[in-house]
Amino acid sequence: MKALFLEEINGPIRLVNTETPQVSEGQVLVELRAAALNHRDVWIRKGQYAHLRFPFIPGSDGAGFMGNEPVVINPGIQWGENPMFQAQDFHILGMPTNGTFAQKVLVPADQIYPMPDHLSFEEAAAIPLSGVTAFRAVMTRGKVKYTDRVLITGIGGGVALWAMQFALATGAEVWVTSGSEEKIEKAKAMGATGGFSYRDPDWIDGARNTIAFDLVIDGAGGAGLGQIMKICSPGGRMVCYGGTTGSIPKLSPQLLFWKQLQLIGSTMGSPQDFKEMISFICDHRIVPVVDRVYPLEQGEEAYTRMEHGNQFGKIVLQIPE
Amino acid sequence: MKALFLEEINGPIRLVNTETPQVSEGQVLVELRAAALNHRDVWIRKGQYAHLRFPFIPGSDGAGFMGNEPVVINPGIQWGENPMFQAQDFHILGMPTNGTFAQKVLVPADQIYPMPDHLSFEEAAAIPLSGVTAFRAVMTRGKVKYTDRVLITGIGGGVALWAMQFALATGAEVWVTSGSEEKIEKAKAMGATGGFSYRDPDWIDGARNTIAFDLVIDGAGGAGLGQIMKICSPGGRMVCYGGTTGSIPKLSPQLLFWKQLQLIGSTMGSPQDFKEMISFICDHRIVPVVDRVYPLEQGEEAYTRMEHGNQFGKIVLQIPE
Repeated sequence: MKALFLEEINGPIRLVNTETPQVSEGQVLVELRAAALNHRDVWIRKGQYAHLRFPFIPGSDGAGFMGNEPVVINPGIQWGENPMFQAQDFHILGMPTNGTFAQKVLVPADQIYPMPDHLSFEEAAAIPLSGVTAFRAVMTRGKVKYTDRVLITGIGGGVALWAMQFALATGAEVWVTSGSEEKIEKAKAMGATGGFSYRDPDWIDGARNTIAFDLVIDGAGGAGLGQIMKICSPGGRMVCYGGTTGSIPKLSPQLLFWKQLQLIGSTMGSPQDFKEMISFICDHRIVPVVDRVYPLEQGEEAYTRMEHGNQFGKIVLQIPE
Repeated sequence: MKALFLEEINGPIRLVNTETPQVSEGQVLVELRAAALNHRDVWIRKGQYAHLRFPFIPGSDGAGFMGNEPVVINPGIQWGENPMFQAQDFHILGMPTNGTFAQKVLVPADQIYPMPDHLSFEEAAAIPLSGVTAFRAVMTRGKVKYTDRVLITGIGGGVALWAMQFALATGAEVWVTSGSEEKIEKAKAMGATGGFSYRDPDWIDGARNTIAFDLVIDGAGGAGLGQIMKICSPGGRMVCYGGTTGSIPKLSPQLLFWKQLQLIGSTMGSPQDFKEMISFICDHRIVPVVDRVYPLEQGEEAYTRMEHGNQFGKIVLQIPE
């Protein structure tokens, strides 16, 4: 079968012919038609993960056929018994095991879900990792309500866009932040009420007297998140699913307790989260935002686009039959 | 009536004879038999509150008679409609309005609760502000379960001791921290499983491989709370009801999201919290820890003991008939 191979840290993404994996008990072979990139794939190439092994086939997100049935794969494997947190041996498809940037992938049988029938393979491949991360952050952990005013930071990224779509589908009012006015405009075209440029150093002070947020969905952390507490409503929840800008350098306990705020960590999602997300996407006929589709052999170009961070939505690989 | 007066920032606490307040509609006059100090009283004397007015009678906690009925006062006034957070005009008895360090105090009628009949006035006066703060932190916000392993920092303070008593009464396993070995021993005598001296700079690294906490109840904030995240169980909750050691200088989003932690602010308590707390104290026949009882005229000595921080439990004032 054809697959993308990564042979070393910082190595190139090469298209190779490799052997089709052997199916053992409890596993199924999915014939992939589309896959999607995540930041995780870029970080793995840069060597920013423990327990790396080479060579391997990257990729966590994928959609294709299991027999004649269109399916989507839940890439979170061995979550464990407790819906509150993942077990010690939880891991994600695409490192250490071979992933979805290939014509076929081997996964445990219970990781397979019917593909929403209103979506193409390219759209369905945009769901798994970012979708379930956003679903858990917004719904399970953030407990969004239709009366909430929600702020989603860094719009354009996969998780942030899903978070916006889920929050909008519940009827909540959504605001966004971005470093790009163009991305803010795109978010507004999708239903966001407004947005703030985080490149403006005074945006929080400017917003402070006019607006307050019941729920914040943030993947950046850093100084920004400490500041955003100031524009939370009393009783507000801030869900943190990432920390791309690093540690929060100064967090005020006084602000936290006086406003009865909550800072809630959330990562990935349980099998229950995944199942509920698929249902929610079907019920609301949500169509994921696909930034660009590359043929499988242009994996390197897809990685480059992800690294540059200019995308708005998921970067998808189309996989030939 | 006799009352303690504070006439200026950093002024002395003086016993004076002053006029009995006039009762207006919707208010009741409580004949106090005991009152208790809170850190709030010390901070007010130091001028660390907004909207100070002088002279005034301090004191938030009190128990006494309303007519022939022994009562305890809920000092949190005008919480508002939402149990999640206090309204803008929420305030606490004892600034700006006159408080409980007096023979009589005027309070809105709905702030009065029957006194638990297993307690003396001195014990009941030890309940209100620290009790409801702990109850909300442990029960309403922290949602303690009997299977939880709980860490309570700074044992000896009023809120921390109540938190320990509430957590123990639910059947949870309780551990404590303190700067004093003697206080740790006293906590163990009350039912704590063990304790750590926060004066040992390596206590967290030492604890890290042997123990993990499902729930942390903390009133200190600062660098300590950022460190304590390391010894939280996956899915753990950290409830922050104070920030005596200042801002948290470095909070890791990665730790927060990977372990699915929650940092939850909590302050004071709603009328519902207060009501449930009184019932819980009665059901479990909990007796508050009283550090020392001073006659009303020794208010200055009581304040001094509070300022020095050597107390273990509440500092109470006995009020003459």
